[in-house]
Formats: sequence, structure tokens, C-alpha cells
Amino acid sequence: MTFKLHPCLAQKSLVCNLPLCSVLLENDKYYPWLILVPRRPELKNFLDMQEEDLAQVGKELMLSQKILYKHFHPHQINVAALGNKTAQLHIHVIGRYETDPAWPQTVWDHPVKKAYQPLELNHLIQTLAFAFEQTCT
Amino acid sequence: MTFKLHPCLAQKSLVCNLPLCSVLLENDKYYPWLILVPRRPELKNFLDMQEEDLAQVGKELMLSQKILYKHFHPHQINVAALGNKTAQLHIHVIGRYETDPAWPQTVWDHPVKKAYQPLELNHLIQTLAFAFEQTCT
Repeated sequence: MTFKLHPCLAQKSLVCNLPLCSVLLENDKYYPWLILVPRRPELKNFLDMQEEDLAQVGKELMLSQKILYKHFHPHQINVAALGNKTAQLHIHVIGRYETDPAWPQTVWDHPVKKAYQPLELNHLIQTLAFAFEQTCT
Repeated sequence: MTFKLHPCLAQKSLVCNLPLCSVLLENDKYYPWLILVPRRPELKNFLDMQEEDLAQVGKELMLSQKILYKHFHPHQINVAALGNKTAQLHIHVIGRYETDPAWPQTVWDHPVKKAYQPLELNHLIQTLAFAFEQTCT
């Protein structure tokens, strides 16, 4: 059984591949929003993971939160594994601001969204990919 | 600085104290819903935690998901640290069913809620406390 990204996740932008997780970027400029997907087949939630992978996903989640905080200085960071709509384990790491459209509610079902401009999106992906590369090496 | 449970969390029912986290129960019978609160002062999100505590909270989160799954057989488990409204680190572990009122949306801002009957709530707390005690010893 080989890992294949769920079609709904495959539509998002790839920032980089960490040792275990692929880091994706949600295209919504209201929130700096990363999604970590462990590259293991048949994972629906954390209970499906091996112990050594759980430790690794914990490290990669902390790294993602540190990078998000350093670059965007959000007021809070939401970390969540839901999987109700997309049944492949993926973990959201979302920077939140007291001025964002959904605050203090959650972002997932909030109707107000705003895509990045293409150049802006490319620049952000490059900046984030560089930050992960610098921190990993 | 000593730990003190946030007033909004102190209103919830205590199931048990694990080595690091207090396990609370949300009083909504539509979802088996635990909330883990690390008993450390001044924590707003995971970035505020010490490395050894992060490993421990990971273990206690896995234990909580296992107990939730064993007792309630949900279709999915949502795990989330939000803290937009209650700025003390607490992690939700929520069993979700394809037949629950909020599915597939998130539960936090869903208007439909239903409290347990007092006897039912006490019985559930005892059952869960026993399950944690059996698994921890």
C-alpha cells in the first residue's frame, strides 16, 4: 500500500516535504494556514499511527507552529485534526488574529474567504519553504 | 506561579487527573467530548510548553482517544486546541458520528446542544474515570 494524497488535499499548494509530513498551504489570505499530512497510507486519525510516527508528527507540528508564529505573529494558533469531510489524516495549523473575519469562532465553516494573488501566493510559498529548510538543517 | 483552571473550564465536570492533564467532560450528550487541560500555569498554546510536557500531553491525548474510541465507537475523532475564546491551553477530544447534529461541520459553534440528565452524567463520569484508572495502572 503506497501513500497517495487525498484529491481535496492535492489541490492545495505544497510548501515542502518534512521527514514525515507534507506541508501544504491553504489559499486564504485572511489566515496563515498550514496543513500537515503524514505520508503514510491508510491513516484516518491519530489512532491509526505507529508510536514513532506520533513522536515525529509532534516534532513537525511544533516546528510548523514556531515558523508560523515567527513569520506572522498571530494572536493565537489553532491546531486541529478533524477529518469529517476529508477522511485522510491532516492537521491544520492556523494563525488567528483578533481582527480576522471569523474570530473568535473557528475558520472551517466561515463563509468569508479571500484567495492570494498568484504572485503573492508564490512568494509566500517560497518564504515558508525557505524557513522550513533553514530550521531543518 | 500556581496553576488555576480558567473559570470557563472550571464549570465543566472533572473526570480524573492524569499525571499532567486534568480530563474534563463537556456536558453535551450528542458527542462524547473530553477536554484535556495541562496543569501548568500561564499556558496559552503548545508553543508555551516545555519539551518533556509536550511528550506527556501527547501520551495523554492518545490515551484519551483510545478510551473514547473503545467506549463510544465514533466514526471519527476530532482533536483540537483552539483557545480563541478561553485563553488557557486545553485540547478537545470529540467523538463524532455521521448522524450527529453538526456532522460534517465542526461542533464548537453549532447551535444544537443537549445536556445529560444528572444521573446519566454522573454514571458517565464514573465509567470514564474507571476506564482511565484501569488503563493508567
